[in-house]
Amino acid sequence: MNLYFAPMACSLASRIAVYEAGGAVDFTQVDTRRKKVADGSDFFAVNAMGQVPALRLDDGSILTENTAVLPYIADRFPTSGLLAASGDERARAQQWLGFIGTELHKALFVPLLDRQAPEAMKAYVRERADLRLGLLRKHLDGRAFVLDRFTVVDAYLTTVLNWAPYAGVDLATWPAVQAYHQRMLKRPAVARAVAEEFALYKAELAKAA
Amino acid sequence: MNLYFAPMACSLASRIAVYEAGGAVDFTQVDTRRKKVADGSDFFAVNAMGQVPALRLDDGSILTENTAVLPYIADRFPTSGLLAASGDERARAQQWLGFIGTELHKALFVPLLDRQAPEAMKAYVRERADLRLGLLRKHLDGRAFVLDRFTVVDAYLTTVLNWAPYAGVDLATWPAVQAYHQRMLKRPAVARAVAEEFALYKAELAKAA
Repeated sequence: MNLYFAPMACSLASRIAVYEAGGAVDFTQVDTRRKKVADGSDFFAVNAMGQVPALRLDDGSILTENTAVLPYIADRFPTSGLLAASGDERARAQQWLGFIGTELHKALFVPLLDRQAPEAMKAYVRERADLRLGLLRKHLDGRAFVLDRFTVVDAYLTTVLNWAPYAGVDLATWPAVQAYHQRMLKRPAVARAVAEEFALYKAELAKAA
Repeated sequence: MNLYFAPMACSLASRIAVYEAGGAVDFTQVDTRRKKVADGSDFFAVNAMGQVPALRLDDGSILTENTAVLPYIADRFPTSGLLAASGDERARAQQWLGFIGTELHKALFVPLLDRQAPEAMKAYVRERADLRLGLLRKHLDGRAFVLDRFTVVDAYLTTVLNWAPYAGVDLATWPAVQAYHQRMLKRPAVARAVAEEFALYKAELAKAA
């Protein structure tokens, strides 16, 4: 498997999942602003949406969307405990992946992080932040993980919560969410993935400056 | 199973899936504007996000998010062919469910259908409609279904495409998408589900007037 990623983008969740599983995949860096792969080729030829993660499977095809890529990675490392292969726990994990993907990633953080999005749009979604993060606070209160142990759901949630300071969202407003995020960042596999991608992110910024 | 639904909302996809499977579940109507269940009780007590679909499972718990509810329904009717139980076809289906949920449902149609959303937000997402629907047009050109046969992906895609005229999106701009939508609406199970919910939708509008 080859994971097309951009530093600190949502593809970080896939790197976290791989490291938590003790697995190995190839990583290919993408400049998602210029839509170029590291070798200079056109990233739209890999994924027509121009988005990461894009996972090249062994048959050469490309799998996209976090709600599909993360369960796929978990299935490739079946002893990792990253996700049940079937049944109610898997359904519950898909629910939370869906919530993170639609309510947090797409409806809250994308507009706030998008430099081209109009101010009225940012203000509108910011007003609705508490509907989403308040629900999350209630769920996480007294829990170590989103489900009963570390799963790909935590990999994804940790990744989108990383964006909060850049989006002007103060997680201290939802203390159980902030405490969860800080706890996740201390896990060795998460810390390693974040440190590696943050270094690449800073190098990318320096190059662009 | 008991499906909390609102007429013509995204929960229609679950009804289509059940009818396509020849299955039976209980349906409970929700007024998502007032957040009330048909018996007058508070819908937030069922789903803290106030959204449909919300599926009450046999253990009494509630499952939400289309990307989780639709695969769950497919799994409950395993001979229906609505979704493979595992493997690459399931991953590919989750990819398309994710695409529909994030790019079409959440990023395009929700802002356009939201009466409270600012005009600048609607204009911004309308400008980006072709990125999403153009990709879909390319994929659907020459195909009968999103995957190789009717699956829960088609149930969800048909449901969100129903909203296009109400959102000011003219599907004729993407002919393969429009042709696909019209073809899906002719399937007996889809036609039955849409006719039933459209009647309930009109009754709801008449009551509100």
